[in-house]
Amino acid sequence: MTEQTDITPTPFPTPELGEPYLLTPGPLTTSAEVKRAMLKDWGSWDSDFRSMTAQMCRHLLEIANDKNGEFECVPMQGSGTFSVEAMLGSFLPKDSKTLVLINGAYGKRVAETISYLNRDYIVLDKGDYMPPRGDEIEAILREDPAISHVIAVHCETSSGILNPIQEISDVVYAEGRKLLVDSMSAFGALPLDVNKTRYEAMVSSANKCIEGVPGFGFVIARKSELENAEGSSHSLSLDIHQQWRNFQKTGQWRFTPPTHVVAAFMEALKTHKLEGGAPGRLARYTQNRDIMVAGMRELGFETLLKDRWLSPIIVTFFNPSHPNFEFTKFYDLMKARGFIIYPGKLTVVDSFRVGCIGRMDENVMRQVVLAAKETLAEMKVDSALPPEAALIERAKLAA
Amino acid sequence: MTEQTDITPTPFPTPELGEPYLLTPGPLTTSAEVKRAMLKDWGSWDSDFRSMTAQMCRHLLEIANDKNGEFECVPMQGSGTFSVEAMLGSFLPKDSKTLVLINGAYGKRVAETISYLNRDYIVLDKGDYMPPRGDEIEAILREDPAISHVIAVHCETSSGILNPIQEISDVVYAEGRKLLVDSMSAFGALPLDVNKTRYEAMVSSANKCIEGVPGFGFVIARKSELENAEGSSHSLSLDIHQQWRNFQKTGQWRFTPPTHVVAAFMEALKTHKLEGGAPGRLARYTQNRDIMVAGMRELGFETLLKDRWLSPIIVTFFNPSHPNFEFTKFYDLMKARGFIIYPGKLTVVDSFRVGCIGRMDENVMRQVVLAAKETLAEMKVDSALPPEAALIERAKLAA
Repeated sequence: MTEQTDITPTPFPTPELGEPYLLTPGPLTTSAEVKRAMLKDWGSWDSDFRSMTAQMCRHLLEIANDKNGEFECVPMQGSGTFSVEAMLGSFLPKDSKTLVLINGAYGKRVAETISYLNRDYIVLDKGDYMPPRGDEIEAILREDPAISHVIAVHCETSSGILNPIQEISDVVYAEGRKLLVDSMSAFGALPLDVNKTRYEAMVSSANKCIEGVPGFGFVIARKSELENAEGSSHSLSLDIHQQWRNFQKTGQWRFTPPTHVVAAFMEALKTHKLEGGAPGRLARYTQNRDIMVAGMRELGFETLLKDRWLSPIIVTFFNPSHPNFEFTKFYDLMKARGFIIYPGKLTVVDSFRVGCIGRMDENVMRQVVLAAKETLAEMKVDSALPPEAALIERAKLAA
Repeated sequence: MTEQTDITPTPFPTPELGEPYLLTPGPLTTSAEVKRAMLKDWGSWDSDFRSMTAQMCRHLLEIANDKNGEFECVPMQGSGTFSVEAMLGSFLPKDSKTLVLINGAYGKRVAETISYLNRDYIVLDKGDYMPPRGDEIEAILREDPAISHVIAVHCETSSGILNPIQEISDVVYAEGRKLLVDSMSAFGALPLDVNKTRYEAMVSSANKCIEGVPGFGFVIARKSELENAEGSSHSLSLDIHQQWRNFQKTGQWRFTPPTHVVAAFMEALKTHKLEGGAPGRLARYTQNRDIMVAGMRELGFETLLKDRWLSPIIVTFFNPSHPNFEFTKFYDLMKARGFIIYPGKLTVVDSFRVGCIGRMDENVMRQVVLAAKETLAEMKVDSALPPEAALIERAKLAA
């Protein structure tokens, strides 16, 4: 029990009594200030709210480092998936052919969405967690000149892998194609500077690394793409071109925005800036991950991914092979200790996930490890080692 | 200034300091309790949140009086328009032909949405505010047997008219067709009992007569329609069939729900029940409208609609013809007095709107009238009478 002496008072106060930490890729634990910003009603057409929206978009473009004013930010109601669908429906022309890079649920969802749109696509499916690499993308693009677009998931939270987005962007543009990025769980912490990583559009949402509450997403897109997107969308609600035009014309959201969620997001952006923007947030999340992973490994848990591919967003651990280990029991006992973890999504071996994002710091992560230790003891699991099959699975991945 | 003596302390406390009342058709003024319910973070896959969602759906089906269990409630992320589009995309088969009843912006939006879907439709467009009547609908349906569906807007907030939904439903089913209802601003106050008014599906949203905050809508649909809707939707995100199947299978929203907004809605539903459900709410809104309209008429303002068609949701007034009257100034001075009113949407004559819904009672409505009186005095407008053209316009409407 030496860990207990390491726990210093946290600068991030424990959530309200009885409220567990959400160790997940969002919805996540937000600050009290973010939630308190929702204690006011806003008229969505009123000038006060219109200027709030404009300020929000400027701030998000700053995070993307759009210093030449080539991009625009278009918020969209609904979950992040709604924004991904809006991006695809608006920026994939009807005669486009898309290469979808898949290594988990979110890549699969992109392909499923394009099926709904009746637009042409092929996939590079790397399975549960293998990263799509530049050379294989290059080969596919060279072989099929009809491919006009590539879609990549920045951080695939199914496994927690951080995909090599710079490498992907470089090869896509070297081959003269266009890149769209689902940066849902990465933007605001991982770098996605429009001057360094080329892309036409990317998507993220309110309740990820900016640490707002869920209710809308946003697309950051090249102006030329927005202009060309007229008449492209399959959906009135998800038409990014029309949404953008309406902001330009009236400063208003085309349809009722989640006003309270937007107000919370403004507060979250303020904190994001105070923490040093994306680099500051990345530093905290990285520290969260390092402390948590080191502690869990000390307990005998093994990560799915080798260190090189571990994102600072969420980490997949193999379930221990010990006969007393049962995930639902582990989940419930962790929840009783104040931590909600996340089930795994691997198809080959059993696993669970622990998130590193949200209003939490390394002290919280030490408490997570302590809770895991106590939970294993309560379950009478004296070794957290995974089954042999899990380690064979992991060996397939490059270090 | 005799009104001032009528103002008794209101049981609905004034919103937070500096926060104006929203006299609009939503987002609207919500109670402090509703907003305070957002001070907690929820894991959207966790059992606590799953049971909250299930309870919410049961409560909404109770409001629709689905005592025979023939209907299901399917919540959908986004604004109300997202739910309308979801309903249309899911329940209008690809070979359907729809008659869209239009008398304002929301009817027009339905037609625009069906255009995006590439499905066949015709419109009965009655202009700014004339109601679609049973006999004319009957004639159209008899003339065109290819029409399979009719869409009606329950309360068209563009003018504030309460459309004759029972009359419409009766004729649609007498002619063997199917009815879908946009009851956005009416459900939860105006009756829409599935045993009295036949329809296949209806839509409303969190931030209307239930008095929640904006962020999601919901579809109440006949089970048989939900079952038949597989493969019908044009959109992954807005696929009501898949959303429903996922709730059945996992109890979870398919994609991240606006957790805080849902929690606020649960609180709003509690208050709704305590107030006597839809009949109790209708009584308060009716009282709000009657007090407000009587007071405004006393000041010389004229309503667009004759009493028979006035909804208890929102009321359109003609702008006074007095040369000193200017709407933006009127708006700003009303806002400075703590009341945000709503611009008009008529194409023929200038107008503005005042809502009767939200956390407000007759005392608040008396204060609104007093504010309008003071504002007219400040603008040196000594008569609120509309131009002659407005009264000629109104004369077209049956009493």
